[in-house]
Amino acid sequence: MQIKDLGEFGVIDLLTRLVVDQRAGPGNGPPFSFNLTVDNGDDTAAWSVGQSAGQGQELFTTDTMVEGVHFTRETTPWRDLGWKSVAANISDVASMGGLPTYALITLGLPPETQVSDLESLYKGMMEVSNEYGLAIVGGDMVRSPVVFITVSLTGAMQGQPMVRTGARPGDLVAVTGYLGSSGGGLKLMLEEPSEKGEAADYLRTSHRRPRPAVAVGQTLVEAGIATAMDVSDGLAGDLAKLCQASGVSGKIFADRLPVHPFLSSRFPDDCVELALAGGEDYVLLFTGPPAKVNDVVSGLPGGAAVVGEIMDGEPGRVAVVDADGQELPSRDRGWDHFGPAQD
Amino acid sequence: MQIKDLGEFGVIDLLTRLVVDQRAGPGNGPPFSFNLTVDNGDDTAAWSVGQSAGQGQELFTTDTMVEGVHFTRETTPWRDLGWKSVAANISDVASMGGLPTYALITLGLPPETQVSDLESLYKGMMEVSNEYGLAIVGGDMVRSPVVFITVSLTGAMQGQPMVRTGARPGDLVAVTGYLGSSGGGLKLMLEEPSEKGEAADYLRTSHRRPRPAVAVGQTLVEAGIATAMDVSDGLAGDLAKLCQASGVSGKIFADRLPVHPFLSSRFPDDCVELALAGGEDYVLLFTGPPAKVNDVVSGLPGGAAVVGEIMDGEPGRVAVVDADGQELPSRDRGWDHFGPAQD
Repeated sequence: MQIKDLGEFGVIDLLTRLVVDQRAGPGNGPPFSFNLTVDNGDDTAAWSVGQSAGQGQELFTTDTMVEGVHFTRETTPWRDLGWKSVAANISDVASMGGLPTYALITLGLPPETQVSDLESLYKGMMEVSNEYGLAIVGGDMVRSPVVFITVSLTGAMQGQPMVRTGARPGDLVAVTGYLGSSGGGLKLMLEEPSEKGEAADYLRTSHRRPRPAVAVGQTLVEAGIATAMDVSDGLAGDLAKLCQASGVSGKIFADRLPVHPFLSSRFPDDCVELALAGGEDYVLLFTGPPAKVNDVVSGLPGGAAVVGEIMDGEPGRVAVVDADGQELPSRDRGWDHFGPAQD
Repeated sequence: MQIKDLGEFGVIDLLTRLVVDQRAGPGNGPPFSFNLTVDNGDDTAAWSVGQSAGQGQELFTTDTMVEGVHFTRETTPWRDLGWKSVAANISDVASMGGLPTYALITLGLPPETQVSDLESLYKGMMEVSNEYGLAIVGGDMVRSPVVFITVSLTGAMQGQPMVRTGARPGDLVAVTGYLGSSGGGLKLMLEEPSEKGEAADYLRTSHRRPRPAVAVGQTLVEAGIATAMDVSDGLAGDLAKLCQASGVSGKIFADRLPVHPFLSSRFPDDCVELALAGGEDYVLLFTGPPAKVNDVVSGLPGGAAVVGEIMDGEPGRVAVVDADGQELPSRDRGWDHFGPAQD
C-alpha cells in the first residue's frame, strides 16, 4: 500500500500510534518521565518545565513549505515567503496560547539560487521574528532540487495549553478573525496577477503576510478556553481534525462565516467556499460551552464569531448547513497531502 | 551571484551575520534577553534556563538528509535511514556535552511511498530514540518529489556547552573514535554491494548505524574540555570549520589517525583519505592544552587519539602532514553543499 492510498489522516494516525506505543527503553524510565502534557497529534507538543507544577510549559512545533506544493515564487515572493514560513509556526504556538521563543531554519536549495533572493528570504524571516519577539538561533542548509523551508520553533507559556481533544457535544465553535482572505488572495493572483486597487492589495497581503494570533491565544487561555487550533488548511478540514481528535461531530453555519467585505465584493460567488476551504488564514478556531464562548467572542477586541457547534456523532464528520439548516452538498475541502479528498 | 559561487561557508557566514545583526525589535529588549550562551554557527544553539546561574542549559539543533544528496535507498535502507537521521542530530547534542530530550520529525515524501517503508523508517527512529532516551513528540509531513527527512532536537545539560570558538595556538587536537569507517562502508557498498564477511559487516554497519558519542561528550565537559564538535563531514573539513570559528590554523598528523583494522585491511590505499574526508563517523573532535588533552585521551574508556595541533595562522587553514612533517598535497576534502571545493 502506498501512502497516497492511506491519506494524510491515515498516515499520521499510523505513525502517531507507532511512536507512542514504542516509546519506551532502558534510558527512559516510566512513560511520563518526559513530563509531556501534549503528545503527538496536536498543533505543538508541550511539556512541563521546572520542578513544581505551574512553573510553565515549553512548546515545540515544526512546519514545512515546499515549492510547487505550498507556494510558487510567482504568488509568494522570497521576502514574503520568509515571513510566511516563520509565521505558520508562530501560529501553531499561538493556537496553544503560548509565546514563540527560539527558531531553527532549514533550507533546501538548488545551487543556482540567487544570493540576493536568500537575503530577501531572511529579511522577511527577521521582520516577523522581531515583530513577534523570537530569536532565530541556527539551522541547516542542504542542496535540493526543489526549494523547501522547514522551521522548528519552541514556545513558552503559563497555564494549560489549549488542545484539540477537548470539544464536547453542545459546545459552540468560534473563530477569531476573517476567513477566506488568504485563499482569495491566492485565487486573485492566479487569475489576475496584475490587478490593482485596495481590495487586491488586501487580499494579496492576507495571503503573503498572515499575522499569527499570539495575543488572542493568550487571551483565550486566560478566559479558560481549553480547546483550540489554528486555521491553516481551511475551516472545514481543520474543524474535522479537531472533531476527530475529540471524538465528536461538528456543524458549520455557512451564513455566519466572517468574511471581509473586500473578499465578498471581489468574489461574491466563491467567498463562502473560500471561507470554508481556503486555508492559511491563521486565525484561531476554538470551542467551549455556549455561555463561555459567547462571552469570549463579545470581549475579543479584534472581533470573533460563532460559526458552528459540536454534536454527538461520527468522529471527525463535519456538516455545513445553510440558514435554513439544510446541509450543503459535501465538496473536496481541506488539504490532504497524499491521498484522495477527505470528504 | 548564485549560492554555489559563494559556497556553503560563505552562505552560512552571510546569513549568520544577517540574523545576529538584525535580531532586535520592540518585543525583544536588549540583545541578551534571550539568555543565549551559544548563538548561530555552532553544532547547536544553547541558552540558560531557570533564574539563577548553573541551573542548566537547553540545546537546540536540526539536521536534514535529502535523497540523492545525503543517501540513496540502495546504500541506506529505510530502517537504517530512520536511525541515522535521528543519530546525526543526537551527535550534535553530544558534541556540546548534552543529553538529547525531545525531537520533531519532518518528512518530505512522494505520494507513491510505500506505507511499509515508512513503518521501517519509524522503527529505526524509535530504536535510536529509545536507546538514547529521547522522545519523538510530533512533526510534519509534506508531499515532495524527493524524500527528505528533517529532525529537530532539543537537549539539556549542566555546565558550559563545548563550542567551536575556543581553540588556541598550542592546543592539541584529538578524536574520540575510529575515523573513516562510515566512508569505507559507503565505498564498499558502491563498489561491492554484495560483499560478505566480518569486515564488510563492520563497515556497512558503521555507515548505516552510527553511534553518537553522548556519554563521551559528557565526560569531556566534566574533564574541563571547552572546545569540541562532531565529525560529520570528515576530519579535515570539520577541523577547518573549528579553526575558522576560532580564528586559528590547524595541522593533522596523517600517520596518527585512528583507523579500524577492518578499514585498513580492506582499503589499504584509501584508508587515510577516508579517515580525513569520509565523514559521518560521528566521533567527537576536541582541542585543549596538551597536558589536559593527553590526560583526557588516556582516560577515555572507549579510546581516543591525538591527531593534530592548533597553530597561529590563516583562520580555517588546515594542513595535513606525514610522519616526516612534510605537507601532503591538498585535495578536495569535506563537503560543500553548494560550492566548489574548500581548499
